[in-house]
Amino acid sequence: MTIGIIGSDFLNMDMKKFLTTKVRLVNQYLQKNLSSPNNYPPEIYHAMRYSVFAGGKRIRPILTLTTAELLNGNINRVLPIACAIELIHTYSLIHDDLPCMDNDDFRRGKLTNHKKFGEANAILAGNALLMLAFEFISKSKKGYKINELIISKILSELAHASGFAGMVGGQVVDVKSENKKVNKETINYIHTHKTGALICSSVRIGAIISGASSTLLIRLTKFGNTLGLMFQVTDDILDELDNRSQLKKVGKRDRERGKATYPSMFGLKKSRGKVTKLLSDCNKYLKPFGKKAEPLLAIASLVANRID
Amino acid sequence: MTIGIIGSDFLNMDMKKFLTTKVRLVNQYLQKNLSSPNNYPPEIYHAMRYSVFAGGKRIRPILTLTTAELLNGNINRVLPIACAIELIHTYSLIHDDLPCMDNDDFRRGKLTNHKKFGEANAILAGNALLMLAFEFISKSKKGYKINELIISKILSELAHASGFAGMVGGQVVDVKSENKKVNKETINYIHTHKTGALICSSVRIGAIISGASSTLLIRLTKFGNTLGLMFQVTDDILDELDNRSQLKKVGKRDRERGKATYPSMFGLKKSRGKVTKLLSDCNKYLKPFGKKAEPLLAIASLVANRID
Repeated sequence: MTIGIIGSDFLNMDMKKFLTTKVRLVNQYLQKNLSSPNNYPPEIYHAMRYSVFAGGKRIRPILTLTTAELLNGNINRVLPIACAIELIHTYSLIHDDLPCMDNDDFRRGKLTNHKKFGEANAILAGNALLMLAFEFISKSKKGYKINELIISKILSELAHASGFAGMVGGQVVDVKSENKKVNKETINYIHTHKTGALICSSVRIGAIISGASSTLLIRLTKFGNTLGLMFQVTDDILDELDNRSQLKKVGKRDRERGKATYPSMFGLKKSRGKVTKLLSDCNKYLKPFGKKAEPLLAIASLVANRID
Repeated sequence: MTIGIIGSDFLNMDMKKFLTTKVRLVNQYLQKNLSSPNNYPPEIYHAMRYSVFAGGKRIRPILTLTTAELLNGNINRVLPIACAIELIHTYSLIHDDLPCMDNDDFRRGKLTNHKKFGEANAILAGNALLMLAFEFISKSKKGYKINELIISKILSELAHASGFAGMVGGQVVDVKSENKKVNKETINYIHTHKTGALICSSVRIGAIISGASSTLLIRLTKFGNTLGLMFQVTDDILDELDNRSQLKKVGKRDRERGKATYPSMFGLKKSRGKVTKLLSDCNKYLKPFGKKAEPLLAIASLVANRID
């Protein structure tokens, strides 16, 4: 794992420890709050847990926690909301995989939720995860001393990022663009809405909880937007590399599915150049925070370096 | 339309006016907040609006508004949240109609959302309506002077009532019980969760926004729960009557679909008796409010009298 932009051996080791600690925190909270084996009906718990613990990288909650730390926020206070974002992400994956959407049988090497539990339970498990996310948010005030005004701001942020003006909008355009020739604006719309909106919100929410000034919030929003787009462009590049390697992969590639990707539109070389440019922009937006922003920048570098 | 338990001609006329005014308020708010023809992507707006304006009776938002009035709450303050509940109800109908759930082609004499817009858009329109409901709640503080603590309480109430411990749980058990012999506990679970939870929350939220004491909230919760169950039992009776009339009806009947209904388990006579008992319970829970509770009781009577 290269962390190019940081380039410090000490920080590399430190970052590994940093990330492992954060992932553990997130997983512990999720385990604790999704572990009611006696609850009825059991199917829905199994289906919800199956996808929540299917090996996600937890990048969104890590972004929330890391942004909060950058602004001297209390990490335990942020944790329930960081985990709520992971639930929203998981719900979106379950629904995206459905037969009428991307029709995927496998995700992360495991059967998709609807292949394992049936379509009805998969749709309902997604819906239940979305509602549980909002329950996490409403509960977060207890014991975590988050004030009501912030709860309200976060509610607004997440409902907007996940709705028709965010993630749902991106998915609608993605589905309708399949096997069609799309222009640059459309592919940017899909990437910034379907993937980018929630990644940007993960950063923004870490900032909002920590009482960021509007100047800092604007700067971190630019970072979040850039990171969100970079995440999807690197995903596209990985899909293209996988496509070219001709190796048998479990699950379909976006190119095979007739989806518009960055490399299919701009070529691999230009797409790589775009990632370099986006990472450099991340660096620019975080620069004023100085050394304290190294963990956030390291995460951005990890995302960018996935394609190496 | 008989309003049996009230039995006053004056009140009958008054109630008609009362209900018409409330429906108009709800529809005006929904029209205003779901009318962005220039928004992108247009499909999702069309699909969302199609089901929101498909002729719903608006019983849930009316309950919220009427409960708020009972407790001297400001009706305009409650309106955005009452409309949010209607959006959650609409989302649940769109998803319930899907091929993998109830597989209905028609609702209220019109094509169901997925028949009109395709399955992917129907799922996404449902999700978008759910998120828009939470946006309505987060926006409601502006201009409506709802304090943040109440926003937080409402968030908790609605996320819980709509999630695995409420509406989703009821739907999971409903889907898995199809064409199976179920016991009395299961049918009660389905009815109180799938339909009852959101109806009860409609009442509770009207009370919470109006600052109800815990004593009053408990009493109104009992009323809400009773009304929610009564709503579903009368629905079952209507389905059974329709089944027996042998008339060609657009859309499938629950009995045909192998769903457990009150009349299929207890017979029509006992089911009617149950409605009478539930209406009497509604009366009992509202009695301490005196004359002021007449509108709420009239709504309960209207629900009960659907089967006459």
